[in-house]
Amino acid sequence: MGRIVQKFGGTSVGDLDRIRHVAGLVKREYDRGNQVAVVLSAMSGITNDLVGKVNSISPLHDTREYDAVVATGEQVTCGLMALALQSLGVPARSWMGWQVPIHTDDVHGKARITGVGTEGILSRFDEGQVAVVAGFQGIAPSGRITTLGRGGSDTTAVALAAALDADRCDIYTDVDGVYTTDPRIVPRAQKIDRITYEEMLEMASQGAKVLQTRAVELAMNQRVRLQVLSTFEDLPGTLVVDEEEIVEQQVVSGIAYSRDEAKVTLVGVDDQPGVAAGIFGPLSDASVNVDMIVQNVSGDGRRTDMTFTVGKTDKDRAVQILEGIRDTLEYGDLNVDPAVVKVSVIGVGMRSHAGVAKTMFQALSEKGINIQVISTSEIKISVLISEDYAELAIRALHTAYGLDAE
Amino acid sequence: MGRIVQKFGGTSVGDLDRIRHVAGLVKREYDRGNQVAVVLSAMSGITNDLVGKVNSISPLHDTREYDAVVATGEQVTCGLMALALQSLGVPARSWMGWQVPIHTDDVHGKARITGVGTEGILSRFDEGQVAVVAGFQGIAPSGRITTLGRGGSDTTAVALAAALDADRCDIYTDVDGVYTTDPRIVPRAQKIDRITYEEMLEMASQGAKVLQTRAVELAMNQRVRLQVLSTFEDLPGTLVVDEEEIVEQQVVSGIAYSRDEAKVTLVGVDDQPGVAAGIFGPLSDASVNVDMIVQNVSGDGRRTDMTFTVGKTDKDRAVQILEGIRDTLEYGDLNVDPAVVKVSVIGVGMRSHAGVAKTMFQALSEKGINIQVISTSEIKISVLISEDYAELAIRALHTAYGLDAE
Repeated sequence: MGRIVQKFGGTSVGDLDRIRHVAGLVKREYDRGNQVAVVLSAMSGITNDLVGKVNSISPLHDTREYDAVVATGEQVTCGLMALALQSLGVPARSWMGWQVPIHTDDVHGKARITGVGTEGILSRFDEGQVAVVAGFQGIAPSGRITTLGRGGSDTTAVALAAALDADRCDIYTDVDGVYTTDPRIVPRAQKIDRITYEEMLEMASQGAKVLQTRAVELAMNQRVRLQVLSTFEDLPGTLVVDEEEIVEQQVVSGIAYSRDEAKVTLVGVDDQPGVAAGIFGPLSDASVNVDMIVQNVSGDGRRTDMTFTVGKTDKDRAVQILEGIRDTLEYGDLNVDPAVVKVSVIGVGMRSHAGVAKTMFQALSEKGINIQVISTSEIKISVLISEDYAELAIRALHTAYGLDAE
Repeated sequence: MGRIVQKFGGTSVGDLDRIRHVAGLVKREYDRGNQVAVVLSAMSGITNDLVGKVNSISPLHDTREYDAVVATGEQVTCGLMALALQSLGVPARSWMGWQVPIHTDDVHGKARITGVGTEGILSRFDEGQVAVVAGFQGIAPSGRITTLGRGGSDTTAVALAAALDADRCDIYTDVDGVYTTDPRIVPRAQKIDRITYEEMLEMASQGAKVLQTRAVELAMNQRVRLQVLSTFEDLPGTLVVDEEEIVEQQVVSGIAYSRDEAKVTLVGVDDQPGVAAGIFGPLSDASVNVDMIVQNVSGDGRRTDMTFTVGKTDKDRAVQILEGIRDTLEYGDLNVDPAVVKVSVIGVGMRSHAGVAKTMFQALSEKGINIQVISTSEIKISVLISEDYAELAIRALHTAYGLDAE
């Protein structure tokens, strides 16, 4: 007998038939003798509809009321799922965030989980009952309902799995696992059987949408065994686990990409100590996240060009802030290029293998692709290139690292 | 400065424009310097949609999960209303049943309110904040969400007004008050300015749909001053108050009618002690409510006919039960007639005025209307007649008691 957390996203519970189907997947784990907690998102489309209503009433809304409205989506799914399970003869009850309770801070709209009470659910486990838990929501110290922001249900599932000391946290979705890259771009992409937390974290933060970065981070910190698998096809998924659990480690596990960034270049910045702080301090104060940064060597040693990337949605705000400090920074031109894509190769094997970067640069060079910015971490190399070359680059790299399926 | 509870039904908050309109009505009371609590139903159509989903998943459902699902309707309206009020510059926050808290018993789906916590709302009143409270819902001793059943939001409003010791509880609806009878049947029906609790209770329980019986009963017991008025027209409404507050009392205040009952006749029942218990005991055990009862005098003193009414929705169940006890009761025929209507004249003035019944029987007789069953209370006379004569009877009585508008 084990203890399993199963999480189903909005598409998986998108209508009543799908809710019945998911109930069958839960029953299967239950029938195996497992204690099961199910974490659910709102039925797909519902959250957007509720957000639309809120924005229509009040574009600059009180996020506490936003949370009260939006959290109803998960509440409905949970009640219906408990009923669907009961119809299959599986004892079940719904748990809202405040009932579990899922404690969070009071940052409404994007709250962080601070603790999970398990007493209630554990005592029901002892009675053989399945817990159907509303994802994406919690309760603030004030007693108000909070929501966790985008992808919050994944985070709920992982936090609950950690608190319940579950043997596994299964994230059901509309794909059957994590792939070496996006199969829509590379048809010969392969499903990865096992991937390390660190790699999955890089994959998620570099653009792979199958798991939320926050959830992977939490799973890594709490050592929760994650599995990504399909709601609709009965296939083995991808296990996200400790490095030690992976016997034959690939040098490169996957290629991720992100079209969500824009390149900003400040031309002719004074090349002296403190200038970077002068640029990135104000951006940071305005919550504009800066990702890749490169500072060109200047010809005369007095002026330099500073290039960096920001999220596309932050682009206009970033420009506004940089225009505001033009007088103090005394830079020349301010160029913004949104037509870029960031391509990353990821693998823990890089730590012990030389030549990974060389393979990357060579493969791109052979296709005539110009690299605009490079950034690296211990297990990842990212390059910024023109978006025109995105698919070409991804395919070339997928082949170069030997990831193509036979 | 006063303290007001305002309650708005589903039609009044049926879409975002109406929610904005209602926010204006709340602001008007707030701007007068009042402390205001607003009780809201779900947007019209939403509750039925949620109930439909529940029934589709599980026709014989766990009512605890039904409640979890259905209670979301009011949660959405409350969040949106708080935002709409804030947009008008009125400080406001939403309160779910469990946050107030509205304590109930654990009879899910039709729970009764057992207590209302007021500490939270009162302390926010002191800060000048409007409380937007979800109607129809509460929290059981188990910590699960409950709903109060049909018309529950009226009951929430009255219970909250009583607990807050409010000066008035305004029930906003799509009509502008309580009328002497249904204006769709009698165009010369008049709006009643003031009506006693007792009369209102009879009006509601005899078929006038403007207020829920439970809510009136609670208002009467707790001496909450009720007002029924229109959300859409700015007109004075009807006040429901103590008898002492009404200076010139009409003998008859109104004519109510109900098409919801069916007539059942047991022919040739043994006329001996215990036979009534033998009939109505089993019906009561099956929660079939019996309303009017008449026992005909038998010719030979050995057999009698027993006639009574049950709710139309209980008709088939009643027949089933009566067929089941045919052998022990030894009655002859069992006749069921759903083509009946109950017409009631109501007025506290009856207590001190003779001749009210005589006027009724005379008016009906003049129109050739046959009375099938009669029942009376201190302030009400009801007759059961063929439904074909419903409108004719109501119009004749409205005229006979001098209720027609000039």
